Amino acid sequence: MAEIITLDDPDDPRLHDYTGLTDVELRRRREPAEGLFIAEGEKVIRRARQAGYAMRSMLLSAKWVDAMRDVIDEDPAPVYVVHPDLAERVTGYHVHRGALASMRREPLPEASRVLATARRVVVMESVNDHTNIGAIFRSAAALGMDAVLLSPDCADPLYRRSVKVSMGAVFSVPYARLDAWPRGLDAVRDAGFRLLALTPGEDATPIDEAAPHRLDRVALMLGAEGDGLTERAMRAAHERVRIPMAHGVDSLNVGAAAAVAFYAVTAGRPQP
Amino acid sequence: MAEIITLDDPDDPRLHDYTGLTDVELRRRREPAEGLFIAEGEKVIRRARQAGYAMRSMLLSAKWVDAMRDVIDEDPAPVYVVHPDLAERVTGYHVHRGALASMRREPLPEASRVLATARRVVVMESVNDHTNIGAIFRSAAALGMDAVLLSPDCADPLYRRSVKVSMGAVFSVPYARLDAWPRGLDAVRDAGFRLLALTPGEDATPIDEAAPHRLDRVALMLGAEGDGLTERAMRAAHERVRIPMAHGVDSLNVGAAAAVAFYAVTAGRPQP
Repeated sequence: MAEIITLDDPDDPRLHDYTGLTDVELRRRREPAEGLFIAEGEKVIRRARQAGYAMRSMLLSAKWVDAMRDVIDEDPAPVYVVHPDLAERVTGYHVHRGALASMRREPLPEASRVLATARRVVVMESVNDHTNIGAIFRSAAALGMDAVLLSPDCADPLYRRSVKVSMGAVFSVPYARLDAWPRGLDAVRDAGFRLLALTPGEDATPIDEAAPHRLDRVALMLGAEGDGLTERAMRAAHERVRIPMAHGVDSLNVGAAAAVAFYAVTAGRPQP
Repeated sequence: MAEIITLDDPDDPRLHDYTGLTDVELRRRREPAEGLFIAEGEKVIRRARQAGYAMRSMLLSAKWVDAMRDVIDEDPAPVYVVHPDLAERVTGYHVHRGALASMRREPLPEASRVLATARRVVVMESVNDHTNIGAIFRSAAALGMDAVLLSPDCADPLYRRSVKVSMGAVFSVPYARLDAWPRGLDAVRDAGFRLLALTPGEDATPIDEAAPHRLDRVALMLGAEGDGLTERAMRAAHERVRIPMAHGVDSLNVGAAAAVAFYAVTAGRPQP
């Protein structure tokens, strides 16, 4: 059972986890260094807890205390109740979802541990947009991908915006970072995965012809919006695959392309 | 060859087409009433012209005159050159793409005309988010859907944000509005289309089992983010179809779901 504490001083050190939430650069440094991430809104907070993340504290406006009563009763983390104006002053924005939680980060698993049990893996290279990361995790979870591997320069899946866009899927899909890039892909290949590089390039194999749904272990590689996969990443793949496009159209956005490719890899098994 | 006119008065009536661009409610009323829409950025302006839309005028900062020189030489519409500060004052935002054009709207075709030549049609119900409309048009174009039909309350595909997110696909995919809803679907059915209603409902047929890529004429119905299709719209369909989801996940976002469904309808023809 948590202690419920009403605070009215924006400089109260107990609010430190929640300061300056709109300063992306600041939070991007601070959160991993301080071992925390922010879950926003009732649903996302519940999903983070269900996934096993420990709560450091919760920040609520008074009217959210009842909605979160069961969590408050179960969890010993302190609950700070503040006026919405104070929440806005501390965080830098109007917290319209009414509830924030500071959650404890866990060390990421090694890639080898993630690969041991997975059969359908997403590999992202340089996806540094939090919205795209979140959208890709959401689709990966929905369409049954088992795990995600990130190149060292991918954005943080636990950043507030990624978490929100993913609808909490960043908690349920296991992920790891590859320390070396693209050398880290060797371990994926050695674990028996066929590496498929997704590209709009016209010389690539249409993804339906590659028939990834019939492969035993597949790692689907995706690059960032705009640039796509680097040439050296593509060279590390077994095969380049593309989504067949109508003539004269540039490409799908990365979220749409990822969803289609996940479908082709996991669920795209039309009856012959 | 256009006249190039330098303007420095924000109240100059020649700038009227570009005033208050950030006021969505205002522009939503004004643009259809005044028979115009705004194309933003060099690429989108070029695509609008290629699609046959006439230009009423162009608004440029001085450094964009060279980049648009060929358009200026070809097109008689006046070109207003303004300082970036003035552009911001008139439009309400910092026009970082540097070039805006006011284009003439054309009357929409009748649904029957659109249906006459199409075999793969998207039908949207109550999709009133400009970003979603744009994203769905972009995926529809890329994945080879032939046309779009909109329920009366869908947002305007020619609104600036829709145009931008679609990367100009709203110019290349023919679309029409159904005047009556859902009664207007009768005409789609009478034209020989099989109406498939996309829903996350668990009693729906998995879309791969419905094998829409083997049907002669398919109309794929999509609802808005969150609410999905209304019950009365679903009753008007021949069949309800769903994208198979992993357990415990809510759903795909509407853009991802649309892309997967378009792929299943058009390109999802894995080798048996």
